[in-house]
Amino acid sequence: MGEASQLQKVYNQTKYKLANHGVRNIQVLQKAFEKKNGELESDLYGTGQIIEDFQSKMASYLGKEDAVFFPSGTMAQQIALRIWCDEKGDKKVAYHPLSHLEIHEEDGLKELHHIETVLLADRNRVIDLSDVMNMENGVAAVLLELPQREIGGQLPSFETLRDISKYCRENNIRLHLDGARLLEVLPYYGKTAAEVCAMFDSVYVSLYKGIGGIAGAILAGAQDFINQSKVWKRRYGGDLISLYPYIISADYYFDMRAHKMEQYFRESKEVADQFNSCYGISTLPAVPVSNMFHVHIEFSKEQVEPILLEVERQTGIGLTSHLKEINKQSCYFEVHMGDMYSEIPKELVTRAFDLLNQQMKRDLSNEADYE
Amino acid sequence: MGEASQLQKVYNQTKYKLANHGVRNIQVLQKAFEKKNGELESDLYGTGQIIEDFQSKMASYLGKEDAVFFPSGTMAQQIALRIWCDEKGDKKVAYHPLSHLEIHEEDGLKELHHIETVLLADRNRVIDLSDVMNMENGVAAVLLELPQREIGGQLPSFETLRDISKYCRENNIRLHLDGARLLEVLPYYGKTAAEVCAMFDSVYVSLYKGIGGIAGAILAGAQDFINQSKVWKRRYGGDLISLYPYIISADYYFDMRAHKMEQYFRESKEVADQFNSCYGISTLPAVPVSNMFHVHIEFSKEQVEPILLEVERQTGIGLTSHLKEINKQSCYFEVHMGDMYSEIPKELVTRAFDLLNQQMKRDLSNEADYE
Repeated sequence: MGEASQLQKVYNQTKYKLANHGVRNIQVLQKAFEKKNGELESDLYGTGQIIEDFQSKMASYLGKEDAVFFPSGTMAQQIALRIWCDEKGDKKVAYHPLSHLEIHEEDGLKELHHIETVLLADRNRVIDLSDVMNMENGVAAVLLELPQREIGGQLPSFETLRDISKYCRENNIRLHLDGARLLEVLPYYGKTAAEVCAMFDSVYVSLYKGIGGIAGAILAGAQDFINQSKVWKRRYGGDLISLYPYIISADYYFDMRAHKMEQYFRESKEVADQFNSCYGISTLPAVPVSNMFHVHIEFSKEQVEPILLEVERQTGIGLTSHLKEINKQSCYFEVHMGDMYSEIPKELVTRAFDLLNQQMKRDLSNEADYE
Repeated sequence: MGEASQLQKVYNQTKYKLANHGVRNIQVLQKAFEKKNGELESDLYGTGQIIEDFQSKMASYLGKEDAVFFPSGTMAQQIALRIWCDEKGDKKVAYHPLSHLEIHEEDGLKELHHIETVLLADRNRVIDLSDVMNMENGVAAVLLELPQREIGGQLPSFETLRDISKYCRENNIRLHLDGARLLEVLPYYGKTAAEVCAMFDSVYVSLYKGIGGIAGAILAGAQDFINQSKVWKRRYGGDLISLYPYIISADYYFDMRAHKMEQYFRESKEVADQFNSCYGISTLPAVPVSNMFHVHIEFSKEQVEPILLEVERQTGIGLTSHLKEINKQSCYFEVHMGDMYSEIPKELVTRAFDLLNQQMKRDLSNEADYE
C-alpha cells in the first residue's frame, strides 16, 4: 500500500462526501447478508438457486435470452470477444483507444487470445458510425463502451447507436456492449436497459459501479453464446465453487439502487453546473449524460491541492480524494454521483462551491498562464 | 439444477453426517463476518490490509518469499505453469493423467496458453521418480498433486518427493505443488507446510477444502514469480476490486481448522477401517494418508443404493449423498473427513457400520458375481 496523500487523508476525515455511495468497507457485505436466512444453500460451480435466479432476473432486465454471472468484467468481456472471433474465424476486434481492455487489463485479450485490436476514433471523442464504416476488413466484433469512462463518461446519441448496430448487422460484425455503467446512462437515453441492449449481440454490466455491489459482472446474450461463455468461464478459473458473496450483494444493491439512476443523473448535472460556475474549473462533458463526469482544472495539481484541502476542511465536504496531473498546467478528477450527495445539507453544498470559487479566484487569478 | 437423487434427498435429511464440515450454506460466510468490525476497509485491486496481511501470513506458513490470493486454484495453477514455461521458453509441462488441469478445467491450459501436456504415471498410481526421469525432453515444469485426489488421495513417500525435487533442480525443471489439500497430508508426512513446500518452486493451496472457506486459493513462491503472477491475475480478470469476502472467510476458517488436520487424519483412518470391515466394501487407499479416501463397493450402484438409503434412514447418519458408477459391477464414493464426524455419538457410528455390513451380506452375498 502506498502512503495515503494529504488529500486522501483529509477527504477520509470529512463528514460528508460529494460523490459515491460511501466507504467500501466490509459493512457493505454485512448489510446485504444480515437479513438473509443462513440456511440458504451456496451456489455450486454455476448451479443452484442463488446464481440461477439472479442470472434469470438480469437476463430478463437486459432483454436477453440468458445471462451468466462472472467474477469480473475483465473476464466476461475478453470471453465475449473471443467467442465472436471464433465464430467468424477472424481474430480481430475494434474498440475505443481508451477501452478498459486496452489500458487496464495488462493486454489480457492479446496475451491470452492473440486477438488483434483495431482502435476506433480519437482518444478524445466517442466512436461514430463513420469510424465503424471506415475500419479495416476482418473485424469480428466492435465493442462500444457506454458511457466512455476515460473521457468523462461521454455518449453517442441513441440514433448513432442504432446506425452502428444496423451497419454491424448488415456487415456480419458482432456488436458487444461494455455496459459497465449501463444503468447509469438509461435516464439520459430515456430507454429501458432492454431497449439499449436490443442493439447489441452481447452485453456486459458491472455490479459494483452505479449499483454499488462488492464485485462481479453479468454477461448476457443468446443461449448459444451464453453456453459457450460458461465453458470459457471454467477455463479462466472463474467458475468458482461459490460466487454467492458477490451475487447476494449484487442482488441486494441492484434492488436498492437500480431505480435511483434518474436521481443520480439529475444530481450529476446539478453538481457539474456548480463546478462549471467556479473560476478555472470546467467539467467533461459540460453537461453530464450519466451520474459521472470529469472535473478539469486549468492549474497545476500543486496549485489546486491546497485549495481543495481548505474547502474540505472548512465545509466538511469531501470533494475528491485524488487529483490527477494532466500536465504542468492542468489536472482533473473523476466524479461518480451516488447515495452520499443527498445526505449533505443543501446550504453546505452551496457554501462549499462558493468557497471553492473564491479560493480559486483569490489564489490563482493572477497567474500569468490563465486568462 | 438437476433433480436431486433419492440418495441426495435422504442424505440431506439425516441428523448427522459422516464426512465434511457441514452444509455449504450462506451461514458459513455470516459466521466469519459476524464479529468483524464493519469499518474495516475492503481490499482494492490486490492492495490493502486485508489482502496483504493474509498473503504475508500464508507466505510465512508455506515458507515462501511471497504469496498472492487468487479467486480460484484453476486460475492460479495455469498461471504458475505459464510463468515456468515462459521462463524456459518451452511450452510443455508434465503431470498426472488425472490432474485437475487435465480433467476439470475444460482444457484451459491448452486453450489459453497452448501449453503441451505430458502425462506421467498410470492413472491408478502416483508419480514416481522414474516417471520424471524417463519423461520426454523440454518439460518446463512438473506438477505434483498431494494427495492425488482422483485416486482416493494417495501420496508418494516423502523420500520420493525429495528425490523428484532434487532431480528437477539438477535438470532445470521447475516443480509446482498442486497442494489443494496440502494441509490435509501434513500429519501423515509429519512435516510442516514449509518443509514440504521447500521442495517446490511454486505452491498452490486451496482455502475451501480441508480449511472449509468459501472459495479462493493461495499461490506462493519467490518474489519475482509472485510479481509475474499478479500481472497474469489481472490479465485473467482475477484481480477483483474486492476479494475480501473470500479472504476474511479463509482466514477465519484457517485459524479454526489448520490445527485440526491431525484429528481429521486419525478419524479418516478410523472410518476407513470401519468401511473395510463391511462385506463387499474396501477403501482406496486401504489405510488413508490424509482426511480423504474413496469407498469402493463391488456391486452395482442400483444394488448398493437401497442399502445406503436404509442405513441412513435407520441411523440418521448420512454416509454419502452420491454414488458414482465405475461399471455395471461396481461403484464408489468419496469421503473427506471434517468437523461433522465428531458430532455423531460413537455408538451410533458403530451401529451404522454394523447395519451396513449386515445389509450388504443379507442382500448381496448370494450374488453370483461376488465371491
